[in-house]
Amino acid sequence: MSVPLLAIHTMTTKPWDLPTAAAKYSGAGVRGIGVWRQWLDGRSLTENKQLLENHGLTPCSLVRGGFFPSLTKSERQSALDDNRRALDEAAAIGAPQVVLVCGAKPELSLPENRKQITEGIAACIDHAAATGVQLAIEPLHPMYADCRSAINTLGQCNDIIDQLGDAHVGIAADVYHIWWDPHLYQEIARAGKRIIGFHVCDWITPTNDFLNDRGLMGEGCIDIKSIHRAVRDTGFNGFTEVEIFSTRLWATDQDQFLQNIITAHQNYVAL
Amino acid sequence: MSVPLLAIHTMTTKPWDLPTAAAKYSGAGVRGIGVWRQWLDGRSLTENKQLLENHGLTPCSLVRGGFFPSLTKSERQSALDDNRRALDEAAAIGAPQVVLVCGAKPELSLPENRKQITEGIAACIDHAAATGVQLAIEPLHPMYADCRSAINTLGQCNDIIDQLGDAHVGIAADVYHIWWDPHLYQEIARAGKRIIGFHVCDWITPTNDFLNDRGLMGEGCIDIKSIHRAVRDTGFNGFTEVEIFSTRLWATDQDQFLQNIITAHQNYVAL
Repeated sequence: MSVPLLAIHTMTTKPWDLPTAAAKYSGAGVRGIGVWRQWLDGRSLTENKQLLENHGLTPCSLVRGGFFPSLTKSERQSALDDNRRALDEAAAIGAPQVVLVCGAKPELSLPENRKQITEGIAACIDHAAATGVQLAIEPLHPMYADCRSAINTLGQCNDIIDQLGDAHVGIAADVYHIWWDPHLYQEIARAGKRIIGFHVCDWITPTNDFLNDRGLMGEGCIDIKSIHRAVRDTGFNGFTEVEIFSTRLWATDQDQFLQNIITAHQNYVAL
Repeated sequence: MSVPLLAIHTMTTKPWDLPTAAAKYSGAGVRGIGVWRQWLDGRSLTENKQLLENHGLTPCSLVRGGFFPSLTKSERQSALDDNRRALDEAAAIGAPQVVLVCGAKPELSLPENRKQITEGIAACIDHAAATGVQLAIEPLHPMYADCRSAINTLGQCNDIIDQLGDAHVGIAADVYHIWWDPHLYQEIARAGKRIIGFHVCDWITPTNDFLNDRGLMGEGCIDIKSIHRAVRDTGFNGFTEVEIFSTRLWATDQDQFLQNIITAHQNYVAL
């Protein structure tokens, strides 16, 4: 039995390495996987690709590139080099996109952070074209605007893509980051076919940690189905990617957690 | 010596009760005070008003009303009653505005939360008119959209005031909540004379607590002077209100902290 259009990010089941995650996901009928780059370590890219193929898994994304804003020229060059490497890795394992966490430095002004991000993405487009891998800008929640991403709304993503074109740049829309946005549905509609990734989890109350206190779908307040419907209405037909960072959930039995993800996807995400 | 246009919220120096805060602020040359309602306890409203007058302090705001979204009719009525009491209290101590933390319930949908907020504010307008006290909507950072306020941008405030009129409803703009907004400057300009409160503190990196880890101006990444300039450009000529919640700073010597606030205001806020 397979679970249509459900993919899971390796970070979601953090205690599992890639061989374990691949075997477990596949055994549970999951057909898609979002691969975090650390999970590739210890095997060649060819071996990683083969591992996913052996389990019938489609890699829907490689996570993550980005982190463009830099204080020095050499740091900026390192970031560009790393993003090009990420594109190469994605191509090698057959992932169609690299998810961009665009970055931010609190030492830089917000306009400067945003300028460096647009320039950084622009500088990677030729390599994206050469590898056939897309750059997926993921807007991050405004609570990360100081140090993780100065791109905080779908509207900003749309503005950047208006400027850079959509041949090699798209958007990864994660409900965790965008659910609160008063312009959410209008910007999803504006994005249209630019949406090339759809990530889900939930926002729990209270949230006690800025990074690792996300909820399983259904545990929180996000109207995931409405957002999902709007995203599908754009014509998006890719995997729904479950991306949950949770110290609490990582501490639970991961086999049971995997089953809970599949049930939660059915109950709170699937249309 | 007085510090022009500087006001401090009683919550900023949480260890001090109102008589202490009033004496200390006044002694340091501070002329404005933002009064949190808990600080009124233990004295009559007349005594509180007299206390502030005796120290030459102008109460610029009473904090706080709001918390409109409710799960039951009786809870909703209690919220309205409480907001009307807040307006009465503000009038009694001579504060020209009640700051609204609009509220949100994770059990309600975001549109329902937002609808109840607009309706709640609307239901208080007559009483605001009768008391001569303004309702100041404070947009809160999107990280509070689940449980503290579903009003998260200046744009939403402007939309609400477009609907309700600006005779008795204005905006309290706090840099902590709005600094990240890509539409910040355009919405400040759109707000114009609707801005009736301006609050400052800073966003520090990393921020480790959702509520009580704000920074003193200059400690973080917010470009406070630019926002301040834009707010003054609307014609706003009221106090700049220092509102810092910080477990770390509350644990320091509050006399020294008060001096640091005055210095930080001079260095990072004053134009």
